[in-house]
Amino acid sequence: MIDVYSHHDSINLSMQKKATISIIGASGYSGAELLKILSRHRGVEVGKLFANASAGRRIDEVNPWFRKGLSATIESYDPARLDGSDLIFIALPSGEAMKIAPELLASGKRVIDLGGDFRLADHLAYERYYERPHTALDLLGEAVYGMPEWNRASIGAGKLVANPGCYPTSAILPLVPLLKEGIIEPSGIVIDSMSGTSGAGRSSATELSFSEVNETVRAYRVGRHQHIPEIRAALEAAAGATVSVVFTPHLIPITRGIYTTINASLKRAATSREIEMIYEKHYGAEPFIRFSGSAIPEIKNVLNTNYIDIGVHVDEAGRRITILSAIDNLIKGAAGQAVQNMNILLGFDETEGIG
Amino acid sequence: MIDVYSHHDSINLSMQKKATISIIGASGYSGAELLKILSRHRGVEVGKLFANASAGRRIDEVNPWFRKGLSATIESYDPARLDGSDLIFIALPSGEAMKIAPELLASGKRVIDLGGDFRLADHLAYERYYERPHTALDLLGEAVYGMPEWNRASIGAGKLVANPGCYPTSAILPLVPLLKEGIIEPSGIVIDSMSGTSGAGRSSATELSFSEVNETVRAYRVGRHQHIPEIRAALEAAAGATVSVVFTPHLIPITRGIYTTINASLKRAATSREIEMIYEKHYGAEPFIRFSGSAIPEIKNVLNTNYIDIGVHVDEAGRRITILSAIDNLIKGAAGQAVQNMNILLGFDETEGIG
Amino acid sequence: MIDVYSHHDSINLSMQKKATISIIGASGYSGAELLKILSRHRGVEVGKLFANASAGRRIDEVNPWFRKGLSATIESYDPARLDGSDLIFIALPSGEAMKIAPELLASGKRVIDLGGDFRLADHLAYERYYERPHTALDLLGEAVYGMPEWNRASIGAGKLVANPGCYPTSAILPLVPLLKEGIIEPSGIVIDSMSGTSGAGRSSATELSFSEVNETVRAYRVGRHQHIPEIRAALEAAAGATVSVVFTPHLIPITRGIYTTINASLKRAATSREIEMIYEKHYGAEPFIRFSGSAIPEIKNVLNTNYIDIGVHVDEAGRRITILSAIDNLIKGAAGQAVQNMNILLGFDETEGIG
Amino acid sequence: MIDVYSHHDSINLSMQKKATISIIGASGYSGAELLKILSRHRGVEVGKLFANASAGRRIDEVNPWFRKGLSATIESYDPARLDGSDLIFIALPSGEAMKIAPELLASGKRVIDLGGDFRLADHLAYERYYERPHTALDLLGEAVYGMPEWNRASIGAGKLVANPGCYPTSAILPLVPLLKEGIIEPSGIVIDSMSGTSGAGRSSATELSFSEVNETVRAYRVGRHQHIPEIRAALEAAAGATVSVVFTPHLIPITRGIYTTINASLKRAATSREIEMIYEKHYGAEPFIRFSGSAIPEIKNVLNTNYIDIGVHVDEAGRRITILSAIDNLIKGAAGQAVQNMNILLGFDETEGIG
Repeated sequence: MIDVYSHHDSINLSMQKKATISIIGASGYSGAELLKILSRHRGVEVGKLFANASAGRRIDEVNPWFRKGLSATIESYDPARLDGSDLIFIALPSGEAMKIAPELLASGKRVIDLGGDFRLADHLAYERYYERPHTALDLLGEAVYGMPEWNRASIGAGKLVANPGCYPTSAILPLVPLLKEGIIEPSGIVIDSMSGTSGAGRSSATELSFSEVNETVRAYRVGRHQHIPEIRAALEAAAGATVSVVFTPHLIPITRGIYTTINASLKRAATSREIEMIYEKHYGAEPFIRFSGSAIPEIKNVLNTNYIDIGVHVDEAGRRITILSAIDNLIKGAAGQAVQNMNILLGFDETEGIG
Repeated sequence: MIDVYSHHDSINLSMQKKATISIIGASGYSGAELLKILSRHRGVEVGKLFANASAGRRIDEVNPWFRKGLSATIESYDPARLDGSDLIFIALPSGEAMKIAPELLASGKRVIDLGGDFRLADHLAYERYYERPHTALDLLGEAVYGMPEWNRASIGAGKLVANPGCYPTSAILPLVPLLKEGIIEPSGIVIDSMSGTSGAGRSSATELSFSEVNETVRAYRVGRHQHIPEIRAALEAAAGATVSVVFTPHLIPITRGIYTTINASLKRAATSREIEMIYEKHYGAEPFIRFSGSAIPEIKNVLNTNYIDIGVHVDEAGRRITILSAIDNLIKGAAGQAVQNMNILLGFDETEGIG
Repeated sequence: MIDVYSHHDSINLSMQKKATISIIGASGYSGAELLKILSRHRGVEVGKLFANASAGRRIDEVNPWFRKGLSATIESYDPARLDGSDLIFIALPSGEAMKIAPELLASGKRVIDLGGDFRLADHLAYERYYERPHTALDLLGEAVYGMPEWNRASIGAGKLVANPGCYPTSAILPLVPLLKEGIIEPSGIVIDSMSGTSGAGRSSATELSFSEVNETVRAYRVGRHQHIPEIRAALEAAAGATVSVVFTPHLIPITRGIYTTINASLKRAATSREIEMIYEKHYGAEPFIRFSGSAIPEIKNVLNTNYIDIGVHVDEAGRRITILSAIDNLIKGAAGQAVQNMNILLGFDETEGIG
Repeated sequence: MIDVYSHHDSINLSMQKKATISIIGASGYSGAELLKILSRHRGVEVGKLFANASAGRRIDEVNPWFRKGLSATIESYDPARLDGSDLIFIALPSGEAMKIAPELLASGKRVIDLGGDFRLADHLAYERYYERPHTALDLLGEAVYGMPEWNRASIGAGKLVANPGCYPTSAILPLVPLLKEGIIEPSGIVIDSMSGTSGAGRSSATELSFSEVNETVRAYRVGRHQHIPEIRAALEAAAGATVSVVFTPHLIPITRGIYTTINASLKRAATSREIEMIYEKHYGAEPFIRFSGSAIPEIKNVLNTNYIDIGVHVDEAGRRITILSAIDNLIKGAAGQAVQNMNILLGFDETEGIG
């Protein structure tokens, strides 16, 4: 069932006391984008900022982009300091949120986790692909997968929202309508993604140094990337059937953006027009999905926006489909989608701050 | 049948009179790479350089990289000036060689064309994908597809060699052994390639300006790129069967290099070891193919070389294979492979100048 | 005399009828940034969009970044269509505004020109550096140089505002306080600037293609760049004396941003503290100037903002000063500063839309 | 006095037993370039390769670019393993060579150090700018500054050659002729350099990650870079007088290359022609200096070469000169110049392997 987006039920911003939003992991790339978005959001104010490595420094010292804008001091994480916060974003590397979330939820806080700890209902898949035990199994049943276009009602009722991964966002949104309508084969789906380096976070890995990334391309974690089970689970939920995908991520020399090229077989000969009608049916009213038919998406058209652009090509025989998508990995692939989830959770118009 | 590479039959460079090699289209990117390679080749000397737009200027004025190295004056094309040339490279945009090659061949010259005019035996495919009529149909039967690893004998006996396209080189070399051995399905092969901008030649197209290419990715000519029939024809020759491929090229912000990710279904469950043995069998003695097993290729490892690097990943069930390849589009994808063909044609060791 | 920035006199946005703003040259890079800013400005609405090459197409077709945002149709320039416009931005290549501005001003319109036609009071300098005759000499006396930090009162009273050049903005703002205070020598000032490619506009020049710009640097128009007389005139006005500068622009492989490194001699031994106090005195209240003392500016800290970041280093002997500045060439160096001027002209708070 | 380059005295390569050359620090960027050059040098063979972090691994595993080329195993540094080596390159971070060189020289080895430990005769300057004590003071008098164009005789007679820094090479070579001829003022010389990231070596510093370097520029170590005393010392030797320079390095998003823009005052009015004659006089016979008059150098013209390109602009009044230079920081700025020094030391033609 489709979760219909509507402008109607959102609360009146001008009459509202502002909600207080805190961020754990404020000094990373996703943290910075969260801060930029929250600063222009009319219904919230920024609460506490936590980040252990830069604790004691001001946010505009750590990231001078914020000078003359934000000057809050970053603190070492301390849950006792979150009393006045209405909602908390966790923007830490995967593996950290499962240490923190239990006590936050126990104290009644609503939490949106931008990492991978609560995206997989199947903890065995988590342990295999993330290569560590899961230490907050109790929360796996409670967590809601935060893909607004398909999960609005659950998100709105949730306490713990698992914000989707960047690659999964770029692959799941284009594929779900086709799987729901049963027009493509659920097996043999090939997903090749190209990502900029900011997806790896603020990193000191030699292999992410400019000298090593510029003027080259490399695939990585082929066949074992932690986003594989996340993609598969979402597609199987849409298809109501087993789905087989091959997902290959590539690192390319751009800072921001993900481009995903998907190939699938059509179950029966179909025309471009039929495909367009499927996307129109499912996404025509969606504020952040721009379906462009045969016009080819480009990363630059979505930079600094919460849009995903989707284009398609059906081969002459109508038996194979190529689907192309582009997102800003730090916005629709992270902070933007997280604020979209926050807007749903707190009753704001879904586009507030990101429209 | 495999064309075995051998060091034995090549001519003795120290006793030989040097061959004279001319270039039509000397001022483009492929022309420059040809000149760099020929300058260090011990068996040849550079003859005439032609390029209409820069005629009358010295090569080191047009391309100051050559200062203190080469200073020949570029001339307007005039076949009468080719009397002393033993072999001629045509490094012009596709569509030009078919105007020039007939008279060159008629006068007994050997020609290697780096463009697309003589790569397709099927002129209808040419006309459909190159979107122009073919005006030298007589030569289509005579032209030899210049992929040395699979065609050495014919190249050596040929008069007109069609140097393979850059994308096809990156896709055909990894796939042929698997198709020859019948281990992958010949249908549903998915080829996603990423290319730097030099593949488009020295261009004034706005869409290739730095501002339009940097920090973005875009697929292009989806489903209609002119390299599709070239790839299909070579794969069908290897498979001895109809092959279906989906090929999607992407422009990414690098100057040089092509990275190609290929997905195919295995006909039967196979292990990585079996796949490695196939590559070892076919390419173990090849001087310019580096098969790396599960180690992942990167463009930077092949820059400024004539190598193609190939790596593979077989999924757990042994039913799907992902093949990764990397080349320098201007070397193995153009000038390097062209000199490899020249070496075969003129009887030099195949690695001379490019090893 | 310093033009003091104040929040007080701006008009009340909520009670105001929105001003209508039109753009001539809407399809270029500066035009796009103007549209982004105007779309979030609370006091204006976008009027007509003109651009000859893309006339008849929608803005979101020409630039798909605007999809689901702006959909106005671009028109061929026709002054009769500007009746309802309160202010007009001209975002055309230099040489075009002087053809258009006279009739616009004659019809009572207020105009902000982002090109170079009205920046130089001295038409001989214009003709020498822009290498064309000036055809609207009558307007040269009327035009106001639109550098808000030094010219607020005149801008507010003006009809024709010449928006400063990108390089001049990055060089003049750092130098004026030091010249006004007489602490640096007005001769022998060395200005080395590095610019991204968007400064050249949407271009089809081969020399601006990705292949030609990536992985290289080149100086250009050494000793004859058209921004030299603009810089000199502004500095001489500040110094009240003859100023000699050497300005060398460099093209580097980034899309956006200008970094400017300035070296000058101090008239007398001075300390860093004295220099800081000068900047604090002149710029402490400026909303868009961030002086950072010895902290070194970076382009990334100003991207997508209207800030100029300025840092300084005084040598040990206190006799030489190095001044570093960074701007986003399309914002503070073009569209952002232009809207800042518009805000002054129309009585809005100076930071509206760009703060 | 000028050190005249001549082809005459070099030894006959065909009759010579090959010299054995070892490298300490073989796995870094300069080490890789040394290996590439030595592999094509006709008079040497590669001896031992040392690198502690990658000891025990093969060079083609550490750097797959060398696959099918070099396969030597890297060893932990052990001077006892250098018995058969005729010359040793030290390609380690500054501060390491002074620990190693004493015992190498004591055992009679000839050493070329690519780091900074032996470039400054003044150990106080070393300690101030390198921020550590110098622990091999005895060798400072013995070390020869390895700038072949000005120091051939001493290099040829030396035991310990200090290879110049990358920035100093780009600044000293353009300035020495003008200072020697006394045509520019020795005070107030302004040197602004832009460098790619490979100059920092293979690094895991977060500030050198792709995300932090791409699409930005930043000056660094302003007024305190360790190359300042090296530049000043060489210029003072040339001028025979005190020289004052301001040197500001900038990091820009390229992998390789340095571009240096120098501004100086002319002592008396001079013409471009006079300047050209000075460069012609001093550098006309130099194999690796390409003076281009008013033609503007670009980094791409020197990539993968041992050339320095130099261009000049004299202002109209003939009182100010702007000098532009470009080098490949890993070749002329490191490994190429080091091999040039090796060729002099061992009696090869100076261009062997790098011509």
